[in-house]
Amino acid sequence: MPAASAKSRPRKGLRPSPWAARRRPRHEHALKREAVIVAAAHAFRERGYHNTSLDDLAASLRVTKPTLYLYVPNKEAILFECFRAGLAQIQASLDESERAEGAARERLFAFIRGYAAAIVGDFGWCMLRAEDQHLGAAMSRRIKLLKAGIDKRMRALIEAGVADGSIRPCDTRMTAFALAGALNWMGHWYREDATLKPHDIAERFIDVFNRGLRGQD
Amino acid sequence: MPAASAKSRPRKGLRPSPWAARRRPRHEHALKREAVIVAAAHAFRERGYHNTSLDDLAASLRVTKPTLYLYVPNKEAILFECFRAGLAQIQASLDESERAEGAARERLFAFIRGYAAAIVGDFGWCMLRAEDQHLGAAMSRRIKLLKAGIDKRMRALIEAGVADGSIRPCDTRMTAFALAGALNWMGHWYREDATLKPHDIAERFIDVFNRGLRGQD
Repeated sequence: MPAASAKSRPRKGLRPSPWAARRRPRHEHALKREAVIVAAAHAFRERGYHNTSLDDLAASLRVTKPTLYLYVPNKEAILFECFRAGLAQIQASLDESERAEGAARERLFAFIRGYAAAIVGDFGWCMLRAEDQHLGAAMSRRIKLLKAGIDKRMRALIEAGVADGSIRPCDTRMTAFALAGALNWMGHWYREDATLKPHDIAERFIDVFNRGLRGQD
Repeated sequence: MPAASAKSRPRKGLRPSPWAARRRPRHEHALKREAVIVAAAHAFRERGYHNTSLDDLAASLRVTKPTLYLYVPNKEAILFECFRAGLAQIQASLDESERAEGAARERLFAFIRGYAAAIVGDFGWCMLRAEDQHLGAAMSRRIKLLKAGIDKRMRALIEAGVADGSIRPCDTRMTAFALAGALNWMGHWYREDATLKPHDIAERFIDVFNRGLRGQD
């Protein structure tokens, strides 16, 4: 299979295509597969899942559709990979917070910063706005399990805070939902050209959740 | 046009069809149109917007597709009405909070209770999970304007709280986003058979947002 249309010149507004460069063969397949997933995530965000065809995707990468099939079997599998890549970023931030030292409340807030970054990242839109309904039953179940795992670990972090006294006793499940909701909603309103960067937004949210809104009583 | 298939007997699991009953003619059209919108909202939530056809919808109401066209021109218009009906519930709760007496923080919390009820209501799923992308440009613009209006009024309620001292000084825009996010996320995880009712969930959220999470420092 010729890594073919590699010869086409980069067009304005398109990201560099890894098909255009020569790389060490052992990394090449993984790298190109990743490029397919990222390009798809961007296309889904721009046009919606249903309005994006594999032809569009191939065109945006300047390859043929048969070339795409070397890396992914179909559109559903790509969406699954987008979900998974986004959730993996959140999991990585959880790993870090779980391993860190210090009061659980501070570790929860560090996680909030990582979560906010993931939401505005490449896969945020897919993770939040693409419907699980677009996935078949088996894939949808796997995504639900991944999400439930994140929710459980987030709740455990809040429970650890209640245990070490850094978080006051609260309904940990509802607190986790409130936090996740505030963060996930960023996927609906956040725009890259906004003055507040993800980190600033996370700090504002942390302030609200840390101190509450109550003024004088 | 015979209000036709009215004679079919109610089947198990189907809601009563207003076509099955004789009502005063002047209310009949509005009532039936509303039944179409509500049935569509339920069908979209069950199967997703793309997976629901007007044929499915007609079947669930035990009418013919031509009968549906007496009330709605097409599927997009139905989705628009679902969006609008859901947003109207939230607006009604805002109206009430704006008219009420007392500290703005308490009025904000009353609004949160109304918002939570709307999210789990008939139109919550459409309002939150159906993509604006399914709507044409003109309808999508109108929905965005309605949503922006709600956001602005919610922010004004928080600002009023800062002004009357019942809410401590905060980033009112980010606070409104955090609150809306926590509430909207209910549309993703809330199930009708859950032990916590929308009102209880609203109280838990109010507690978190009111007092914050901070334990001992």
